[in-house]
Amino acid sequence: MEPAERVEHRRVVEELQELAALTGGPDGARRVCWTEEWRTARAWLRGRLAEMEGIEVETDEAGNLWATAPGDSERAVVIGGHLDSVPQGGWLDGCLNTVAGLEVLRALAPGKRPVTLRLVDWADEEGARFGRSLLGSSATAGSLDPEAVRGLTDREGVGLPEALRENGVELDRMKESNRQLRDAAAYLELHIEQGPVLERMDLPLGVVLGTFGVERHLVCFRGQHAHSGSTPMDVRRDAFLAAAKASLAFRDDAARRDDVRGTTGIVDVSPGIVTAFNGHCEVSLDQRALDAGVLADMLRAAKAASEQAAAEEGVEVEWERVWRIEPRPFDRELIELADEAVREVAGTAHRLPSGPLHDAAEMAPLMPTVMLFVKSLGGLSHTKEEDTPEADIELSVRALHRLTAETMQWVAGRG
Amino acid sequence: MEPAERVEHRRVVEELQELAALTGGPDGARRVCWTEEWRTARAWLRGRLAEMEGIEVETDEAGNLWATAPGDSERAVVIGGHLDSVPQGGWLDGCLNTVAGLEVLRALAPGKRPVTLRLVDWADEEGARFGRSLLGSSATAGSLDPEAVRGLTDREGVGLPEALRENGVELDRMKESNRQLRDAAAYLELHIEQGPVLERMDLPLGVVLGTFGVERHLVCFRGQHAHSGSTPMDVRRDAFLAAAKASLAFRDDAARRDDVRGTTGIVDVSPGIVTAFNGHCEVSLDQRALDAGVLADMLRAAKAASEQAAAEEGVEVEWERVWRIEPRPFDRELIELADEAVREVAGTAHRLPSGPLHDAAEMAPLMPTVMLFVKSLGGLSHTKEEDTPEADIELSVRALHRLTAETMQWVAGRG
Repeated sequence: MEPAERVEHRRVVEELQELAALTGGPDGARRVCWTEEWRTARAWLRGRLAEMEGIEVETDEAGNLWATAPGDSERAVVIGGHLDSVPQGGWLDGCLNTVAGLEVLRALAPGKRPVTLRLVDWADEEGARFGRSLLGSSATAGSLDPEAVRGLTDREGVGLPEALRENGVELDRMKESNRQLRDAAAYLELHIEQGPVLERMDLPLGVVLGTFGVERHLVCFRGQHAHSGSTPMDVRRDAFLAAAKASLAFRDDAARRDDVRGTTGIVDVSPGIVTAFNGHCEVSLDQRALDAGVLADMLRAAKAASEQAAAEEGVEVEWERVWRIEPRPFDRELIELADEAVREVAGTAHRLPSGPLHDAAEMAPLMPTVMLFVKSLGGLSHTKEEDTPEADIELSVRALHRLTAETMQWVAGRG
Repeated sequence: MEPAERVEHRRVVEELQELAALTGGPDGARRVCWTEEWRTARAWLRGRLAEMEGIEVETDEAGNLWATAPGDSERAVVIGGHLDSVPQGGWLDGCLNTVAGLEVLRALAPGKRPVTLRLVDWADEEGARFGRSLLGSSATAGSLDPEAVRGLTDREGVGLPEALRENGVELDRMKESNRQLRDAAAYLELHIEQGPVLERMDLPLGVVLGTFGVERHLVCFRGQHAHSGSTPMDVRRDAFLAAAKASLAFRDDAARRDDVRGTTGIVDVSPGIVTAFNGHCEVSLDQRALDAGVLADMLRAAKAASEQAAAEEGVEVEWERVWRIEPRPFDRELIELADEAVREVAGTAHRLPSGPLHDAAEMAPLMPTVMLFVKSLGGLSHTKEEDTPEADIELSVRALHRLTAETMQWVAGRG
């Protein structure tokens, strides 16, 4: 391996620590998008890029920052990340991706670029201030509906369009950033897992199969509440017990496969007092699967289970969809390249779906896409306790480096 | 039957309507104890008693009103009721008992009294203003702990001792009212059922076997919440699902008998959001039975069920008792007399436990006690919709009249 291709993986850990010292603190990261701390992080990134030769840097209409290392072809491999964090966030979520990408950009010197290599630092992946995640990447992908976000405000009542304008972004021009993708031929992203799977398998790295499709519903059971003393058991129409039965059935159905999820999170009962059983109970159901057909089957099974539980308890049930998104499976060939890269640096590769969404979900429908995961300690994320052993971070940078080099060859070969 | 013994059951309905017009309104009854409306109801009762000859009226140290019709012996049968209501209450809960007792007092003229007959209008059965029910009767029974209620305040911040004083009652002297029970030999009470049992059986009247013992607990399940997308089903420690399983088991155990209850009312989950399963879930369990041994068995079974559910879901469970009261079974011989009285006026008698507590529960440990129930439409109570057909009210007055006369003979025979 030639010196120019050696990635300085240790430097990534040091730069992440530097960034944490600059824009974090005892309560965790403070890089909420469109705020002063985020702009400080961006300025730090621009400073690092300015030290490198031959890199073109620009910010697009959506506030995304692009660094371009021209190669033998204009066709480009894009590495994505996001410096923005949630409030009191971790030191790795999003910025590992960007800082590792920066290092890969350094390592893959001009002579080693059969195609162009680009790093994008997406704006507002978290949606922490205005509640809309993947804002920058969805604008560039073209899936953003400006009308759906125009009225969003933060806790102080500041509107999203106003906050964007303070950062030089016009909401109605954000989708013009789509031109950045004109020559994009593949998209790569490294991220912490934010789940327990790799740690439990004692593996540092995983290959991501795609982001889950999600079906999210509120399921409302209605019976009739009455006094806990005066009402015999056999005449009750207890909405909570119907919801309890249904929620167990939702879980049992999801537990039959290891690549799906089924979660009851919200549980609201009424009247919710000691001396009455409940006439009303609303639960949320969040179902996830990597396969659209499997997800549709799960939804049908859950509806049937809820109706059976309702019938058994003498109550009514109604469903209301609150959100859905299609599964975004990643590219089969890039998954193979990622698997090879992980095996080369870590010996063993495990393939797993992504629970959380990522900017990669916006890119997957537009170009071949794949992600790498690195182990999260305790599965924790979006908290200052978020952590990954430094040795694993370094392995992840090496894997991203290899994957990027291989993907550039792959793109060149297809051209 | 001689004219003096004929009860004017129609007058009871008319007097209840009169009382409702005086102290109720479009939103229901307003006779909350220790308020102006309650004093108005009491003044109305005193007026009715003043029209009758040979009746001694006094108010005791606990604010209970006693009307005494002397008989051939000082040994007394006591009929109890309460004019006080919840806010926006019904026209029957408590005052049916008092007004029917008034009519029985009228009907059982001096020559027909082998023993003394007394009517007591208990103060503050509902505890609607200060949260302590059975206040007057528990003071007289001797079970009241003044220290446990001294600090109680109403919504406006008025203290219980102050409100009592406005009504001529000194908290620390309330238990002196116990002297009223010196010659009491039996206690009778008529009440609306406040449940659906008699209506479902198409019966007007029932004989009450006693008031339930109650075991009331908070059951707290603790696991670990995590993200609904990133956490595989098989590694979850979902506290809500453990609580759901346990709550179903609590119900299933109670459903094996028709004279017990088991109710989950409170259900509090945390974090209670769509995108996570719950690491914490607290439910209430209210168990009721007429037999102390059965109640103890139910509690043991529920604890075992909660531990099994917790173990299956990988979570911890803890129990905290919030309240308990022993079952208060009524007197076997008086139950027989009540059964005969109901069968004579209604043809069929059904025996059932009382779900709610009543002043009779305070009297049952002290003397032979029994209650009659009259059908509640829709099982509704503590609301302006509370109702009972007038024909059934009239039957209930006739049954109370017969039961009282028979009980007076029974007491005389035991003397």
